[in-house]
Amino acid sequence: MEVFIEPIGRLMNEFSKLPGVGQKTAQRYAYRVINMTEGEARAFAEAIVNVKKKVRFCKVCGNFTEEEVCGICKSRDHSVICVVKEPKDVIALEKVREFKGVYHVLHGVIDPMNGVSPNDIRIKELLARVGEGNVKEVIMATNPDVEGEATAMYIARLLKPLGITVTRISRGVPIGSELEYADEVTLARALLERKEI
Amino acid sequence: MEVFIEPIGRLMNEFSKLPGVGQKTAQRYAYRVINMTEGEARAFAEAIVNVKKKVRFCKVCGNFTEEEVCGICKSRDHSVICVVKEPKDVIALEKVREFKGVYHVLHGVIDPMNGVSPNDIRIKELLARVGEGNVKEVIMATNPDVEGEATAMYIARLLKPLGITVTRISRGVPIGSELEYADEVTLARALLERKEI
Repeated sequence: MEVFIEPIGRLMNEFSKLPGVGQKTAQRYAYRVINMTEGEARAFAEAIVNVKKKVRFCKVCGNFTEEEVCGICKSRDHSVICVVKEPKDVIALEKVREFKGVYHVLHGVIDPMNGVSPNDIRIKELLARVGEGNVKEVIMATNPDVEGEATAMYIARLLKPLGITVTRISRGVPIGSELEYADEVTLARALLERKEI
Repeated sequence: MEVFIEPIGRLMNEFSKLPGVGQKTAQRYAYRVINMTEGEARAFAEAIVNVKKKVRFCKVCGNFTEEEVCGICKSRDHSVICVVKEPKDVIALEKVREFKGVYHVLHGVIDPMNGVSPNDIRIKELLARVGEGNVKEVIMATNPDVEGEATAMYIARLLKPLGITVTRISRGVPIGSELEYADEVTLARALLERKEI
């Protein structure tokens, strides 16, 4: 980046730490910042520092929160727990406005190839929550990929002996898509899990 | 963004001011910041404030600089001036390592449809530089689009009576491309401006 003066090169370097941001995009972002007013740039910088200062993990579900216990855990039905991999999955599910229960964020999935064992994710915490009683159903909403499926199966095996209903989100052809474009694995699953109409 | 807690929503809002960043990308960036160490986040924030504090425009060429006069203007041949629309064009040309002269950044092009008249861009400043003498050639390197061409022609008409050689970067089929995929306007120009070999 020697063609850039130091403050611009430095800011580009920071932007390029963001996911999917290469040199060209980092340059466009840096130039946008240069064209901001000083007040705008300061607000941007403060939002970055602020998010680190204020955001922490809910001590119940592990989702992002500003308080000790998140807004969802404070106000919703604790008899149904939806287990997800990451906080962003909570956002995706909340946008649907269907689910009235609470969440449990694992902060990862079991992935032996990358050295992630069951002890590295929040499975103990889930067992503790279930152990307190009152939980009727645990919905496994990890991703429909190899690690997500394996993690769902692993947790289901731990929970079933406790007399808990453990369910898995359905997998099949996405609504609004065309069969022609569905991959074979998805199509096979859609056939296998067909429902009477 | 009501599904996001305030500090995250606020940071996403800041990120979405960057060019081409929508809600989804802003969310990914915000989550990356949350996963940074506090030191990393502070360095990021400081780089933003720093770029606004330190970067200004070279009083000669209008390019970004930390000092009154930029490094290029300080050290290079002032008899050839390359005129560009924006600072990022200087970066693009400097990467080529071919040009040994200096630049003149217009900070825009004439664009009556969007209310940009010749007085709104740094044409007066270019005339003043040329008026000081010693300039032999002015290379018009504005973009090969309607506004860029019009601006190049407009400036050429002002400079020619002063006895200055005014040139235009060549337009034609890009090196390494295939004729089959060139658009007609480019191909027509490539034919028209053919050179004897």
